[in-house]
Amino acid sequence: MAQQIEPIGGNFALDHLGVAVSSLETAVKFYEQTLGLKVSGFETIAQEKTKVAMIPVGESRIELLEPTVPDSPIGRFLSKRGEGLHHICLRVPDLRATIARLRASGVQLINSEPAIGAGGHEYVFVHPRSTGGVLLELVQSA
Amino acid sequence: MAQQIEPIGGNFALDHLGVAVSSLETAVKFYEQTLGLKVSGFETIAQEKTKVAMIPVGESRIELLEPTVPDSPIGRFLSKRGEGLHHICLRVPDLRATIARLRASGVQLINSEPAIGAGGHEYVFVHPRSTGGVLLELVQSA
Repeated sequence: MAQQIEPIGGNFALDHLGVAVSSLETAVKFYEQTLGLKVSGFETIAQEKTKVAMIPVGESRIELLEPTVPDSPIGRFLSKRGEGLHHICLRVPDLRATIARLRASGVQLINSEPAIGAGGHEYVFVHPRSTGGVLLELVQSA
Repeated sequence: MAQQIEPIGGNFALDHLGVAVSSLETAVKFYEQTLGLKVSGFETIAQEKTKVAMIPVGESRIELLEPTVPDSPIGRFLSKRGEGLHHICLRVPDLRATIARLRASGVQLINSEPAIGAGGHEYVFVHPRSTGGVLLELVQSA
């Protein structure tokens, strides 16, 4: 079902990398004091039961994720896999068209309809089964 | 031993994300045909026993890595963890100064002296123990 499409240059970007950590404090210390990066903000996302530190890196960001309780998406990831890369997020030029192609290709989406995130942006998550083992978040380019 | 340093803005970048895959062909099909990205080049790195497909994404790149033999760094990663995110690579403003800070902070480096990669660039790998579970490659910014 997959059809070849013309590559769309320039409008893709790596929005952020999500990294699951046991302790934001420990991880932030490494990224700030040792590497010289700087956290731009901390946030607690109640619905995800997660505390977040965002670290800008060029046009992209590293998103450090610490669970507030073990029974949460990041808490379960830590129990199963330990600390490490959790997901990557790409900005795509046309999220609706991309979702249509994903469906036509039989790609498994974790949320079949775009969900609305903080700030009102739409996103979907693509199952790692389709992406080379990467939990892939897609958001609409600005 | 870690000392607070002034954050250095602007010169950091996310150079690439390494993704270990069983089949470059299958993974490339997803990233090109379904997502609409485009491979910029294929390469076989004999010393790493790895085939690579590079996919530009904005200022960054996704590096798909398929082992040429099971007894190789990526082959062993696949056996142990399965497909997925393998490492991230940051460009840093001053690699030598960063290495000095890493050492002063007691951070474990996988190669204690910078190694020379394809194209002559210098790089080190930082052990995941120090980075929140992320195998972190550092290279010098241009």
